[in-house]
Amino acid sequence: MISKPKVEICFTPNLFPLYAEGFDIVVAIDVLRATSVICTAFQYGVNKIIPVSSINEADDYLKKGYHVAAERKGEIVRGFNLGNSPRSYMNDNLMGKTLVLTTTNGTKAINVTDKSKQLLIGSFLNLDALCKYLIDLNKNVLLLGSGWQNKFCLEDSICAGAISDQLLNSKKFETSNDSTVAARYLFLSAKSNYFGFLKASSHRKRLKKLNLNEDIKYCLTPNQTDVIPFREDNYLKLLT
Amino acid sequence: MISKPKVEICFTPNLFPLYAEGFDIVVAIDVLRATSVICTAFQYGVNKIIPVSSINEADDYLKKGYHVAAERKGEIVRGFNLGNSPRSYMNDNLMGKTLVLTTTNGTKAINVTDKSKQLLIGSFLNLDALCKYLIDLNKNVLLLGSGWQNKFCLEDSICAGAISDQLLNSKKFETSNDSTVAARYLFLSAKSNYFGFLKASSHRKRLKKLNLNEDIKYCLTPNQTDVIPFREDNYLKLLT
Repeated sequence: MISKPKVEICFTPNLFPLYAEGFDIVVAIDVLRATSVICTAFQYGVNKIIPVSSINEADDYLKKGYHVAAERKGEIVRGFNLGNSPRSYMNDNLMGKTLVLTTTNGTKAINVTDKSKQLLIGSFLNLDALCKYLIDLNKNVLLLGSGWQNKFCLEDSICAGAISDQLLNSKKFETSNDSTVAARYLFLSAKSNYFGFLKASSHRKRLKKLNLNEDIKYCLTPNQTDVIPFREDNYLKLLT
Repeated sequence: MISKPKVEICFTPNLFPLYAEGFDIVVAIDVLRATSVICTAFQYGVNKIIPVSSINEADDYLKKGYHVAAERKGEIVRGFNLGNSPRSYMNDNLMGKTLVLTTTNGTKAINVTDKSKQLLIGSFLNLDALCKYLIDLNKNVLLLGSGWQNKFCLEDSICAGAISDQLLNSKKFETSNDSTVAARYLFLSAKSNYFGFLKASSHRKRLKKLNLNEDIKYCLTPNQTDVIPFREDNYLKLLT
């Protein structure tokens, strides 16, 4: 019997070394809000995104004249004009341009993997398009949550559960991984009302304090776009 | 307003450093099967249990004439007489004696914490007795799963969810931790049929191959005993 490709979930970037072997594709997920921002920016015409891990790197790009978005703990870092709200990218200001992005958790997940693996960007916003692509690709997939300061977070796990649910329902994938079983259960419990399900989540509480409920609702709305960003060299661009 | 003590869940021992601050009590959980074995051995009259991390340490105790249980990957290690099946402790062979125990995952979770914290042993078998004790104690509680080779595992997370559910339902605890929210949902989905819920779990599949279904069913049956093992110096004994 020919075995099917596998799908597994790694809840946080610090656990990645335990899972890295045997996967061809890594999908980085930071629902609130880095991967949602990336999908939105591409949907509105950004040409390239350079994800950087540190504020220092972001500052170097700023001095060179790049458009740079820098967020820490939910807020725009002082000295930068752009942050981590997808709504601020819903315009044609960056059409055809390159954006540099650093965020508290999301860019770390993107940069944790080396260049030997194909890295894709996942969110609720591009859910169906991403799943269709992965099912057609027929390779081992690792879904990597960004977490919150390397701790498990609910919204990334539910999004990973939503992706794994589509892959497993296609009957073209299999899993023998408890985090995938758990995340799929969480997704099935949450899917009728993501916003309500997440009301107890720590990240939603943090962002609510910053008056970001509109951002949260948008980031939890599946299928707003069919973009599939992927990493090439040190930047992200769109699959064509 | 006086804040309530908190309950949080750390899914695996390698994540413990992220959670260690701010907790007075750590509950080590390895449902399949180390903490279930420990509860059962105490219920049947064992006086002390010395948890050790390595086979070498276990071997040193064996040479000194101790009763030593050693398990790796579900099976008794060659050269030892006792393993990690709770059913093999349901007799009076070790009444009043000291048992040395090393297992693949469970003893690592027990030994991960330093002596500054009170360490208790949790399982489904002593669920209600443990929860009543924790509620009366009124201190910050961290529930620490053993996982499988430092990966998330379903049965420990559901047991941690069961404990946190009782603590939160008492209204004497609070949480702002996503892993606790997630584990509580998983527990609520699983509680009508643990055995069925876990049929997709990787560990149940591993143990099924070793014909350990009876062990699994027993380990998933709440409230078989009211023992509460805790750590004192380098061994475990019963709270009196």
